[in-house]
Amino acid sequence: MKRRALISVSDKTGLSDFAKALQEADFEVISTGGTQRALEAAGVRVVGISEVTNFPEILDGRVKTLHPLIHGGLLADREKEAHRQALQEHAIEPIDLVVVNLYPFKETISKEGAEDADAIDNIDIGGPAMLRAAAKNHAHAAVVTDPEDYPRVLEEARNNGIRFETRRHLAAKAFRHTAAYDALVAEYMTEEAFPETMTLTYEKKQTLRYGENPHQGASFYQHPLPADSSIAAAKQLHGKELSYNNINDVNAAFALVSEFSDTKAAVAVKHTNPCGVGIANTLSAAFEEAYAADPVSIFGGIVALNDTVDADTAEQLATIFLEVIIAPDYSHDALELLQKKKNIRLLKVDMAGGGNVSHALTSVSGGMLVQEDDVKGLADTDVKVATKRAPTAEEWRSLEFAWRVVKHVKSNAIVLTKGSRTVGVGAGQMNRVGAAEIAIAQAQSETQGSALGSDAFFPMKDTVETAMKAGVTAVIQPGGSKRDQESIDAADEAGITMVFTGMRHFRHA
Amino acid sequence: MKRRALISVSDKTGLSDFAKALQEADFEVISTGGTQRALEAAGVRVVGISEVTNFPEILDGRVKTLHPLIHGGLLADREKEAHRQALQEHAIEPIDLVVVNLYPFKETISKEGAEDADAIDNIDIGGPAMLRAAAKNHAHAAVVTDPEDYPRVLEEARNNGIRFETRRHLAAKAFRHTAAYDALVAEYMTEEAFPETMTLTYEKKQTLRYGENPHQGASFYQHPLPADSSIAAAKQLHGKELSYNNINDVNAAFALVSEFSDTKAAVAVKHTNPCGVGIANTLSAAFEEAYAADPVSIFGGIVALNDTVDADTAEQLATIFLEVIIAPDYSHDALELLQKKKNIRLLKVDMAGGGNVSHALTSVSGGMLVQEDDVKGLADTDVKVATKRAPTAEEWRSLEFAWRVVKHVKSNAIVLTKGSRTVGVGAGQMNRVGAAEIAIAQAQSETQGSALGSDAFFPMKDTVETAMKAGVTAVIQPGGSKRDQESIDAADEAGITMVFTGMRHFRHA
Repeated sequence: MKRRALISVSDKTGLSDFAKALQEADFEVISTGGTQRALEAAGVRVVGISEVTNFPEILDGRVKTLHPLIHGGLLADREKEAHRQALQEHAIEPIDLVVVNLYPFKETISKEGAEDADAIDNIDIGGPAMLRAAAKNHAHAAVVTDPEDYPRVLEEARNNGIRFETRRHLAAKAFRHTAAYDALVAEYMTEEAFPETMTLTYEKKQTLRYGENPHQGASFYQHPLPADSSIAAAKQLHGKELSYNNINDVNAAFALVSEFSDTKAAVAVKHTNPCGVGIANTLSAAFEEAYAADPVSIFGGIVALNDTVDADTAEQLATIFLEVIIAPDYSHDALELLQKKKNIRLLKVDMAGGGNVSHALTSVSGGMLVQEDDVKGLADTDVKVATKRAPTAEEWRSLEFAWRVVKHVKSNAIVLTKGSRTVGVGAGQMNRVGAAEIAIAQAQSETQGSALGSDAFFPMKDTVETAMKAGVTAVIQPGGSKRDQESIDAADEAGITMVFTGMRHFRHA
Repeated sequence: MKRRALISVSDKTGLSDFAKALQEADFEVISTGGTQRALEAAGVRVVGISEVTNFPEILDGRVKTLHPLIHGGLLADREKEAHRQALQEHAIEPIDLVVVNLYPFKETISKEGAEDADAIDNIDIGGPAMLRAAAKNHAHAAVVTDPEDYPRVLEEARNNGIRFETRRHLAAKAFRHTAAYDALVAEYMTEEAFPETMTLTYEKKQTLRYGENPHQGASFYQHPLPADSSIAAAKQLHGKELSYNNINDVNAAFALVSEFSDTKAAVAVKHTNPCGVGIANTLSAAFEEAYAADPVSIFGGIVALNDTVDADTAEQLATIFLEVIIAPDYSHDALELLQKKKNIRLLKVDMAGGGNVSHALTSVSGGMLVQEDDVKGLADTDVKVATKRAPTAEEWRSLEFAWRVVKHVKSNAIVLTKGSRTVGVGAGQMNRVGAAEIAIAQAQSETQGSALGSDAFFPMKDTVETAMKAGVTAVIQPGGSKRDQESIDAADEAGITMVFTGMRHFRHA
């Protein structure tokens, strides 16, 4: 008996060669609409879908394959006598191969100014039904959604028929295809931030050599439509493939440097924490500050810059070993200079959007925590001076700077700043005063006259006392502890100025 | 014109009341199979699907609704003259309301010893096609997948008809339903760890008050079939709702305590890092060690225990302020005692499976990093003594202990242990020697004779030198640095024993 292939595709890559080859391998080709026209133009003999169903295509093609004479052919279990009889009784011929990919919903919604009616029109109904039917019935039918699978399918079809293992593999792929398709439709139509089910779909961007450690497999996946201003959309201009840890660090550096839209800024990151941050009127001066903040930890780190890298800055960057640089662009000279370094990776990304995620996911066993990104800053708070003394203009500058940085340091976090650079970063501590001590130890003599930022309130006055001893003159923290007054009194006594933001910035991942 | 409702459900909750009410509101009810029988038994007048299609249900019900006379009714754009004409020409009546939920695929695969054939049989084909068709055509049709929506739909249907906003909302929900359904089918059938698309589906378990910070919305989602040994499957026996940070911390504590299947163990966690870990022959002794490791940071922390909490242990636990306790079980007396504390949360979970995640997700802007969990331990490595002196039996015990703990500390991480307790934990540092200094500062006099574990190799000999000065006698680390020999020489000179595992344990989230 002649085998039958039903072909209806939106992506016509390699289509006519594949269909011709199927015909040569004695397949009867059934098709519909644009695919049928394309095949006939290429000289393939095609049986139109209406010849099979004895029913016309109606409703602008919305209904053509949703017919029992098609789905009976897709779904019959040929090992069951009753199924075989039903086929015979209704003159249904089994379908052995389904080649379908779907209306371009993603492409439609990605167009500038796409209308809702276009989006809805491009939700495919008949296609997924055929894919799912043939995938369910993979014991008998093969289903192809991806032109890359044409050669394998063809080879097996020509020889002993498409193997079960191949059909099973293709069926899984078909369900991944329909799952991804409907996940994107659902995302497009869903207004709730946290609906009753959350189905997230991603496309593989890069198979990573390994994860955080060599014994963990890993891959980098991107949203089907990543924002321009995102790590997923960054362009690599030079260097080896990014590693898992590179990507994670670059993400942290990008998010932090995006806080400084009002000044040139440079950020050095190690192990997802900033080790040095600098701001200035020129990019090279900003990088000088970031470097001076901690010339030890920056070694082997990631540097993010929020403006086009010029030759001056590139020369400074080239003097140290860095894993990755990320910036909105590079001047011709800067690129030429940096590309001479074999081991550096250079990334270019649109930084205008701030590199936020809409939903931040954190895996826990059996599920995941989902939260909105922490996109708030000082402008969203109602800052209050808590002490007798108010900050000087220079202190305000340091405090604002410390507040922007501490939001991006793992909790408990304390950041010391002085003018335009961080001088100490205390990260990831289990108690607050411990974080302060780390920041102070790192800052050494620079603590004199520095400003201190804390991501959460002080449960007691010990942090203020520790800061006072180190010569800190200004403090910014959320406030809100039961024992705030003790910290305020200690600050007043030492002549320290302290402001409360009313907003916490815990960050653990 | 009479409105028409097509009803075909697997979940029959509230079905007959809803259908009767629809009938009273002058809907004609079309149905099929088991739903039809249930409705008729409840006294609802039903038009069988075959009366509409003039085609029998065939292939054991696999093909019944996949018919143009159904899908034409679902998909027609009644505002288009050509569509109205097509309906008339083919005697198709529009369908206004679709009430469908799907074959229980999830329930089928969750059954002990479920066969693949059962799973495949329970992939619904006709149902998703109807849901998707009606959802696409929500300009004209309403689609209901969830009995909880019956009252709202009924009320609107009785009054001025189902509103557009409601139909749009229900359509989004229908696509979430089909996306979740196919994502689970795809997961079931997919063998690759990192396929070309990854579509992950989760069900909301808990709307959280907020995320890491009060200005971030958040929810806790679980896998449709969470493992018994997982945070998602944990039972809360007492206390207020878990917060976002609670869940994250509990997850970290559970994963760490699960490392100790061969001894009683207690773990205290703050800000996702362990602040104290103890092991002993009894649970109460293990907790005593964990507490003594850092009696300051444990305040307000999370404690995980790997055995049934007895009265002795409960009494100790009750003396301090803890946010959450998690354990495989509690004795009657222990539970009674701990439940007297209003502010504590008590969780019970099967700890036999170790609380791992299959895929660890980390959000980055525009996508996500996916990696296999770090499930390897010392038994998977080829440990080598690198120094002249080999560890004593007691040193081996401390080294093994340090290695199990350091894997769960944020990088860069250094852990100091002595016998059966951690004495210092240096977490989340941007340089390695900094982590060592934090651990040493915390351990104070306990550093004498302690063992040091490092999650990654020593880039230079400074960590060994720092350890030596503090009186550390034994070191465990991956090895593999270009400058290992310098560290080995420094250790030999100081009489320190050092072993290399060949395995790194970076952890950043």
